[in-house]
Amino acid sequence: MREAFHDELDGISQSLLQMASMVKEALGTATTALLTSDLMLAEKVIAEDIHIDNLQHDLDARSINLMARQQPVASDLRTLVTSLRMSADLERMGDLAHHVAKQARMRYPNSAVPAELTGTIEEMGRVAVAIIDKLTVVMEHRDIVRAVELETDDDEMDRLHRKLISTLLDDNWQHGVESAIDMTLLGRYYERCADHAVSIARRVYYLVTGEYNTVSND
Amino acid sequence: MREAFHDELDGISQSLLQMASMVKEALGTATTALLTSDLMLAEKVIAEDIHIDNLQHDLDARSINLMARQQPVASDLRTLVTSLRMSADLERMGDLAHHVAKQARMRYPNSAVPAELTGTIEEMGRVAVAIIDKLTVVMEHRDIVRAVELETDDDEMDRLHRKLISTLLDDNWQHGVESAIDMTLLGRYYERCADHAVSIARRVYYLVTGEYNTVSND
Repeated sequence: MREAFHDELDGISQSLLQMASMVKEALGTATTALLTSDLMLAEKVIAEDIHIDNLQHDLDARSINLMARQQPVASDLRTLVTSLRMSADLERMGDLAHHVAKQARMRYPNSAVPAELTGTIEEMGRVAVAIIDKLTVVMEHRDIVRAVELETDDDEMDRLHRKLISTLLDDNWQHGVESAIDMTLLGRYYERCADHAVSIARRVYYLVTGEYNTVSND
Repeated sequence: MREAFHDELDGISQSLLQMASMVKEALGTATTALLTSDLMLAEKVIAEDIHIDNLQHDLDARSINLMARQQPVASDLRTLVTSLRMSADLERMGDLAHHVAKQARMRYPNSAVPAELTGTIEEMGRVAVAIIDKLTVVMEHRDIVRAVELETDDDEMDRLHRKLISTLLDDNWQHGVESAIDMTLLGRYYERCADHAVSIARRVYYLVTGEYNTVSND
C-alpha cells in the first residue's frame, strides 16, 4: 500500500513537471508571437491554455484524493500540500503566457513592441524561459542550490523590467501612451511569471530544509 | 475528538474572516492614502502587510497540522484544502493593497492620481471594498447566492478598469507617460484584487455545491 502511495506521489510530481514544461513552451511561443507579430502562434498559445488549466484540475483532484485515501502524515502530507500550491503557481504562469499572446493578437498585424524595446522583451522572454528551465531541475531533483540561484535570476528579470520602464520614460519615447500601457502590462506579465517561479523554488527549499528562504515577493 | 476537530476548523474559518477584514481595511486605507496623498496612511498599510502575511503562515500551519493529526476525509478535507487556497488569495490581495500604498508613497507629496481619474479610482476602491464585504458574508455563511453575485460585481470593476484605460488613451490626456504607467498599474492592482475575491467565492460555491461555477479568470 505504501508503495502504491509513492507511485501515485511520483505520478503527481511528473504531472507538475509536465505542467512546467507546458508553461515554458507557452511562454516561449508567446514571446515569439509577440516579437514576430505571428497571429497563428499567438492563437496557439491562447487555445492551449485550457490544457494547462485542465492538467491543474486533474492534478489537484489526484492530490486531494490521495490525501483522503492514504491519510499521509509528515513529509508526505507536506509534499502533497505543496503540490497543490505549485500547481496553482504554474497555472497562473500559464495565464500570464496567455496574456502575452493576447497582447500580440490585439495589435496584429502591427507589432505590439516598438523597435527600441524588442531587445528588452526578447531578453525578458529568454530569462523567463531559462528560469522555468532551472525551476524544472529544482522540482525534479529537489535541488536547493539552484532554488537559491533562482533568486538571483529573478534579480536579472527585475533589472530588465526597470530598463523597460526607463525606456518608456525617456524623452525619446515616441510611441505614445497606448504603447506605453501595452509595454507596462507586458513587463508586469514577465516579471510576475518569474515571481511565481521563485515562489515555487522557495516551496521546494522549504520541503527539503524545513526552513524558509524567503522575503515575500513584491 | 471530532468535536475538538470542528472547533479547530471553526478557528481556521474565523482566521480567514479576520484576514479578509484586514485586507479590506488595508485596501480601503491604501485608496484613501492614494487619493489624499497621505503619507502616514500609506506607511501604515505598508508596515501592516506583514501582519496579513503572518496570519497566513499561522493559518496554513494550523490547517496542515490539523490534516496531519485528524486525517479528515470528504468534506472536512475539502474544507481544509480550500482554506489553504483562500488564505493564499487573501494574502495576495493584501500584497495588492500594499502595492497601492507604495504607489501613493512613491509620488508623495504629489498625488499619484490626476484629477480626471480621482473619481474612477475612488469608485474602484469603493467597489473593491464592497466586494470584500460581500465576500466576507459568502465565506461566513457559505452564501452561494452572493457568491454568484460577486461575478456581476466584478463586471463593474472591469467596466471601471476599461473606463480608466480609455481616459489614458483620450487625446486630452496631458499627464504624460509616467502617470499613464502609474495608472495602468494601479488599475491592474484593483482589478486583480477583485479577481482574487471572485476566485475565493468560486471556491465557496464549489465547497457547497460540489460543482464549479467558473470560467477561468483572465
